[in-house]
Amino acid sequence: MSLARFSFNQATAKYWPLPEVVTGCVQAGVPGIGLWREPVAEYGLDKAAALVREAGLAVTSLCRGGFFNEPSWYPENRRAIDEAAALGAPVLVLVCGGLGEGSRDVDGARTHVGEAIGELVPHALSAGVQLAIEPLHPMFCSDRSVVSTLGQALDLAAPYPANAVGVVIDTYHVWWDDQAWAQIARAGAEDRIACFQAADWITPLPEGVLLGRGLPGTGSVELRRFREAVDAAGYAGRPVEVEVFNADVWARPGADILADTIEGYLAHVA
Amino acid sequence: MSLARFSFNQATAKYWPLPEVVTGCVQAGVPGIGLWREPVAEYGLDKAAALVREAGLAVTSLCRGGFFNEPSWYPENRRAIDEAAALGAPVLVLVCGGLGEGSRDVDGARTHVGEAIGELVPHALSAGVQLAIEPLHPMFCSDRSVVSTLGQALDLAAPYPANAVGVVIDTYHVWWDDQAWAQIARAGAEDRIACFQAADWITPLPEGVLLGRGLPGTGSVELRRFREAVDAAGYAGRPVEVEVFNADVWARPGADILADTIEGYLAHVA
Repeated sequence: MSLARFSFNQATAKYWPLPEVVTGCVQAGVPGIGLWREPVAEYGLDKAAALVREAGLAVTSLCRGGFFNEPSWYPENRRAIDEAAALGAPVLVLVCGGLGEGSRDVDGARTHVGEAIGELVPHALSAGVQLAIEPLHPMFCSDRSVVSTLGQALDLAAPYPANAVGVVIDTYHVWWDDQAWAQIARAGAEDRIACFQAADWITPLPEGVLLGRGLPGTGSVELRRFREAVDAAGYAGRPVEVEVFNADVWARPGADILADTIEGYLAHVA
Repeated sequence: MSLARFSFNQATAKYWPLPEVVTGCVQAGVPGIGLWREPVAEYGLDKAAALVREAGLAVTSLCRGGFFNEPSWYPENRRAIDEAAALGAPVLVLVCGGLGEGSRDVDGARTHVGEAIGELVPHALSAGVQLAIEPLHPMFCSDRSVVSTLGQALDLAAPYPANAVGVVIDTYHVWWDDQAWAQIARAGAEDRIACFQAADWITPLPEGVLLGRGLPGTGSVELRRFREAVDAAGYAGRPVEVEVFNADVWARPGADILADTIEGYLAHVA
């Protein structure tokens, strides 16, 4: 096993400054990095693009566009596409947004997500950036994403060309779903797998549930089985990101987080 | 709208002593009650059965059997069936249990649930108690129930007679699922709807996520749409339980909780 496919999503070490993340990845022999818009903007988009390019790191994805329930979704997502292109990221991850304030109309919200993505397709195609719908765990349905399953994400992507709209398969969000295996095969057959992310599921969940993920091997998820399933669906050889949000992990030094992430990746995912 | 179908699940007022719950329900014109094994055992099974019978309350369900990942699942579930029969509860709710300690074998756990239920079917039939598989929200997959969707619950019930094995449809657990509507229709067509429970979804979720439910009308769920869907599937006229676990609600006087539950039921469910 090697690190050839490994990509370190910078959110796993949220408080590690970008230049140090980049240096740390290079020193550890990590070939890829997943970036987030906020720390990139803080460092400066063009500077960040130059930094990762000169370090020889492949940017495997940019997080995140989406939140289509917000009034500014259209210009905001155009900007996100442009930023992905500037960074050389082939994929913009979409966290599609929950219900609007006070709304119970989950069907309406889902329809709107599909239409909004359609409006972004021309710009994504011209920028050479694939929009990647990320189904989020159903516990986020009201506040972060009304797209709750891989099947839904593929249904939403279906009207558009695969090079414009794909899906993100994040083990944390889909592991519980007995339909996930069939939908992974479908995603491969439809050439929609834009990104594969690994994170483990641990209980009890913390307040707000966002920061409860575990490093690979610390929880309940058959991570290697998922990696093998996406590979069998045609994703073999492509990047595997590890993306973990966890307050206890974040409190540690960045280099230690990276070392443990690599160890967990090699032991449980690769 | 009336209270004719309303059933107050006693877990909604967890700290209200059973005799006071019963008196409160009678005074409020509530015809049904959902009971839990622990408070019933504390009060005494035979005494509890006499109490609700003499008050003229219908016991609409007993919570709960299940937890098939525990070594003692077989005798424990037989006892639960007997208790349901003693209380005159037509339905024993099954919370099927999560993964075993340290296990990642969710497929294996699901298979075991189906087999375990099969072993209980003869006793359930002879006791006249319907076992009711409750799909729990996927956020409980690792620790409380590997049965995460209504579709899974119906698949698990399928090998057995409908009067022996049905399903519980609890809005809190299934509201996010775009397949829920088709599966409710299927549940009705297969005569498997043993119990319908209403609770609302509110965010942010508290630590541990168990106690985050909302009284009807306080959250994101289209409660009346679900009630109408189960009715259209053949459940019309049958009991509607409200079951809410919420630490803030529990801290209030029982009579106030019941009054607010009735108000929420009439305004958002009935």
